[in-house]
Amino acid sequence: MRVLLLSNSTAPGKEYLEHAMEALAEMLTGVRRLVFVPFALADHDGYTAQAAKALAPLRVEVAGAHEGDPIKLFNSAQAVFVGGGNTFRLLRALYARELLAPIRDRVAHGTVYIGSSAGTNVACPTIRTTNDMPIVQPPSFDAGGLVPFQINPHYLDPVEGDVHMGETREERLGQFLEENDVPVLGLREGTWLRRVDSSLTLGGDEVGARLFQRGHEPREIPSGADLSRLLETVALFR
Amino acid sequence: MRVLLLSNSTAPGKEYLEHAMEALAEMLTGVRRLVFVPFALADHDGYTAQAAKALAPLRVEVAGAHEGDPIKLFNSAQAVFVGGGNTFRLLRALYARELLAPIRDRVAHGTVYIGSSAGTNVACPTIRTTNDMPIVQPPSFDAGGLVPFQINPHYLDPVEGDVHMGETREERLGQFLEENDVPVLGLREGTWLRRVDSSLTLGGDEVGARLFQRGHEPREIPSGADLSRLLETVALFR
Repeated sequence: MRVLLLSNSTAPGKEYLEHAMEALAEMLTGVRRLVFVPFALADHDGYTAQAAKALAPLRVEVAGAHEGDPIKLFNSAQAVFVGGGNTFRLLRALYARELLAPIRDRVAHGTVYIGSSAGTNVACPTIRTTNDMPIVQPPSFDAGGLVPFQINPHYLDPVEGDVHMGETREERLGQFLEENDVPVLGLREGTWLRRVDSSLTLGGDEVGARLFQRGHEPREIPSGADLSRLLETVALFR
Repeated sequence: MRVLLLSNSTAPGKEYLEHAMEALAEMLTGVRRLVFVPFALADHDGYTAQAAKALAPLRVEVAGAHEGDPIKLFNSAQAVFVGGGNTFRLLRALYARELLAPIRDRVAHGTVYIGSSAGTNVACPTIRTTNDMPIVQPPSFDAGGLVPFQINPHYLDPVEGDVHMGETREERLGQFLEENDVPVLGLREGTWLRRVDSSLTLGGDEVGARLFQRGHEPREIPSGADLSRLLETVALFR
């Protein structure tokens, strides 16, 4: 099982996916053909073209999941890449096209999964830790479960002196833990998680990640850390 | 029909509800007893006590909706106040306790409705324009419909030079309008909407609000503006 979950797809001052190109190249070793899932944005053709352009230096051929029978497309590819955008729109489309189970099945049988932002959210057991606005209603918040814990992409530290009275990200995740006994990894921008079978490591920018667990103080996770024990999580959603 | 929908319950440097006390006093004229709905936060007793303390200067007696049979409580009161917190937790509780229809019915028959933040979100047709994290799954996003359009509380303008690559609020609401043909009023902090029957006005801080409609440029709405025509909205949710 090979899974790469990016916090974000674009870093400040860089091209789409440029900041993660080394990690992508490593994960896509041996992959000739990839299916891009563009449903988190409205413009499926434009989004797929953007992904194809970004991945061209890796000599990976890219097909959009909207361009044909997605099951046949998945079967003809060695990787699936679920792009970012709105998580609710993405998950609703995955349910409407009945793609969640086939993706899970293909990934269990060796297809590489790459997710970015919303594509990382739908790789979790549920989308309950997305930052996105619920612009449409999916039939369920249950998602792909390629890891057994939750991820909060684009994790942001509280800003000193911010007068905005909405909750900080840490407070929001505290509310999540009031309701659910499931660890949440806050992936700061520029970072990613890399799963190969039962091994899980944090990669990317040295800003690292922050781990939230019920009954514990939040904990800093440095880049390069081995997080394999998180794969043993027994998640209790309420 | 008397409805007061606040963007936020606490302004920087002020006590809970202090910034809106005049608007509350005006809306609660003649109200002796109010039911506070604390389900957006985890601590129902503490939250109700906080609301009771804030409303004490107005000589309004406050009961928590969790303290007894809520229908009996509603029938003994002249106002209901739905407090802020997490919108998904709040809406799930309103469904679980079967309170949406009774609240709608009481408000149609003269009970004053006051909402703040999450309490403002659940007064809209749906919660699709909340900023909150979907920490629990309500059976539906459909909500109270005390106004026929959507509100985005705590509306935030884009921050110049922000390097965070997540979407701005305006981009999020643009995504909402890609999927739904429904106006959204972005209520900046310190502002509120006041509905009395077929009259709707923007009140509060001079920062005003921003109106988003499909096919139109966003438009600034000054404090004091008459927004009654928004009550004629025909909402098209997808």
